[in-house]
Amino acid sequence: MCGTCNGDTAPAANSTTDNAPSAQTSNGVYPARGTPASSPYQMVQDYISNVGRFKIIESTLREGEQFANAFFDLETKIKIAKALDNFGVDYIELTSPVASQASFDDCKAICQLGLKAKILTHVRCNMEDAKKAVECGVDGVDLVIGTSSFLREYSHGKSMEMIKDIAMEVIAYVKSKGVEVRFSSEDSFRSNLVDILHLYQACDKAGVDRVGVADTVGGATPRMVYDLIRTLRGVVGCDIETHFHDDTGCAVANAHSALEAGATHVDTSVLGIGERNGITPLGALMARMVVTAPDYVKSKYNLKALKSLETLVADAVQVNIPFNNPVTGFCAGIHAKAILANPSTYEIINPHDFGMTRYVSINSRITGWNAVKARIEQLGLGSEFSDDQVKEVTAKIKQMADIRPLAIDDTDSIIRSYHLDIKV
Amino acid sequence: MCGTCNGDTAPAANSTTDNAPSAQTSNGVYPARGTPASSPYQMVQDYISNVGRFKIIESTLREGEQFANAFFDLETKIKIAKALDNFGVDYIELTSPVASQASFDDCKAICQLGLKAKILTHVRCNMEDAKKAVECGVDGVDLVIGTSSFLREYSHGKSMEMIKDIAMEVIAYVKSKGVEVRFSSEDSFRSNLVDILHLYQACDKAGVDRVGVADTVGGATPRMVYDLIRTLRGVVGCDIETHFHDDTGCAVANAHSALEAGATHVDTSVLGIGERNGITPLGALMARMVVTAPDYVKSKYNLKALKSLETLVADAVQVNIPFNNPVTGFCAGIHAKAILANPSTYEIINPHDFGMTRYVSINSRITGWNAVKARIEQLGLGSEFSDDQVKEVTAKIKQMADIRPLAIDDTDSIIRSYHLDIKV
Repeated sequence: MCGTCNGDTAPAANSTTDNAPSAQTSNGVYPARGTPASSPYQMVQDYISNVGRFKIIESTLREGEQFANAFFDLETKIKIAKALDNFGVDYIELTSPVASQASFDDCKAICQLGLKAKILTHVRCNMEDAKKAVECGVDGVDLVIGTSSFLREYSHGKSMEMIKDIAMEVIAYVKSKGVEVRFSSEDSFRSNLVDILHLYQACDKAGVDRVGVADTVGGATPRMVYDLIRTLRGVVGCDIETHFHDDTGCAVANAHSALEAGATHVDTSVLGIGERNGITPLGALMARMVVTAPDYVKSKYNLKALKSLETLVADAVQVNIPFNNPVTGFCAGIHAKAILANPSTYEIINPHDFGMTRYVSINSRITGWNAVKARIEQLGLGSEFSDDQVKEVTAKIKQMADIRPLAIDDTDSIIRSYHLDIKV
Repeated sequence: MCGTCNGDTAPAANSTTDNAPSAQTSNGVYPARGTPASSPYQMVQDYISNVGRFKIIESTLREGEQFANAFFDLETKIKIAKALDNFGVDYIELTSPVASQASFDDCKAICQLGLKAKILTHVRCNMEDAKKAVECGVDGVDLVIGTSSFLREYSHGKSMEMIKDIAMEVIAYVKSKGVEVRFSSEDSFRSNLVDILHLYQACDKAGVDRVGVADTVGGATPRMVYDLIRTLRGVVGCDIETHFHDDTGCAVANAHSALEAGATHVDTSVLGIGERNGITPLGALMARMVVTAPDYVKSKYNLKALKSLETLVADAVQVNIPFNNPVTGFCAGIHAKAILANPSTYEIINPHDFGMTRYVSINSRITGWNAVKARIEQLGLGSEFSDDQVKEVTAKIKQMADIRPLAIDDTDSIIRSYHLDIKV
């Protein structure tokens, strides 16, 4: 429970010696490997875990294009692709070239940009689509087919044996062109477990680069994900890509659980845009993974570019960045007293890693005097206030905050007016 | 991977028989207990799981009041408390009466409203605060104290033995007044595991109603949560309350994992408002739990009141409901073709359960002709279009969508204009 009122009665900081092992490590948060596990954060790492070596398949230009508000012209697509490349994503996935003439032309154009990221396109598992994909010059083709009983009945009506035969033919074709190939089921968590394991194994033997698991309806939980991916990890030797919808708010956690269970790739989109309320958001995944694997994430991805990337996409689809978006959402009302002594007390993410600044809220009835003291110091008046005087002006601020909401200016005015009084 | 283009080549629905066991149950989604587990969604349920009998401690008026933008006067607090009570939450938690005079007065006033929900207040674990809490007439007192080495050093500086002695005294006092009492550590996941288990066990023996586990900095993962709660479940006999911050996007999933591991209570706030980017949002938790335990959730909570509750709180703290908010966010661009035959193909949550309507997006280059056919039927022109004609007008819509974003009016215009042509 994050602390209640920061009242004025608690003793000041750094008063105690502490004989428990500290949880702090070089990154301030997560234990180094080999550290004795003295707190629940210091979990024993699994041998199969890929949390420290995952790759991102960024699907803003495919999944994101299926978002209700999305309409990307070529110029916008190029801007987004370049920004994703600058951020450091491993793959950029594009809408199927079969969808429309513009999709075809744009896919070709983006393949010719010479980006560091590999370019993928996501097509139905049939020869016609695969040929069109290869024709665009992509680095990889992401094949998808529905395998749940729901989708078999209502979407394309193919039996599992037919699915397998088609998959083998299409995979062989894409490989013959020297292009990467992934085979994914759709709605994997409602598919028959034995059926999909059988299918994935056949694809693995046929030489796919990745198999894909998709929670298409967004109903999976982290434990379901862990169990399925861990089982699959024992069945195939190729990479495992994962795709999580966020209908039930678990898309980030599910991606993390998948990596722990041996998945290698996570699909994301900027701000999570996609079908319905979308998929694992790139920014939230970064917030999660920078805590789990700080060295890997900070060295591989250009975190400081996150805010501008999110702004670019938010503008393109005409949405606001959610107020509670991890890292970049506007709200940062934080525990005032403790955080001034040591931000890691109440922060697990250092905003500076993302090029953001820390904001300490002091305009509330539940503000403590330590926060007010810090503000007084920012105003250059620190040397002129005793602690008792700081406490007195804090009481005045609280009194005022009981009556109406205070802006930072209001608080400053109260401080300055009090300062004039004590100078007299 | 949610389906790529809904092109026009796939065969129509209901063409195949399917000899795999269907995943569908009475609620359309989740397997009934006892159903053979044929897909990963059909997990074997744990004996210790409380996913079908959890309780909500709603903290919009405590955690939420610590949100950067929050300023609730008494009138607003009463409106929110009544709306939460109408929604059916089990407990309503209020800001400490020690925080300010208004907090004290408001706490007393809300206790006197005669709501069905029990009223709690959340105070520091000391006698002075506990007495003030009891004085307000609350049904329960939520005691909190920091137990991690971070917080011991920087926040209040008490050793574990001192913490335990104080806790025993305060718990005995609150119990003597016939008031419910919870004891929670703060920052539980960075606390020393042995220390906090020792402390919880002592509190359990002292007769607390609940112990509380808090991920104060929002860095826990679902597996950490599962492991800690499951261990704790074996150590104490009392209820277990959980509180998850959302800094790394895992607050909903962590709450679910906690319930699976035997926790009994989840802290929420409306839209998740709270310190920094907040805690487990009430609405997102409902989306999660209505999938996991549909009968329990639908019979216990007034889901149709969610939207108005969220709007009330969003207005009070002057934020927009995030575009991607589960259930109530504006976006519902869904798989058009399959969903018309059977919405559960691409939806795990029925919007009608929440008093919302389903929206099918057809204004995009990746729209299929089945979606357009549905729109033509809505326009009352269904009998006048052959399938070939629907496909032709779909091609026109796609052509136009390649050039500029289409509003629903634009699409309707294309359909009507085509209709005039074919009538001639």
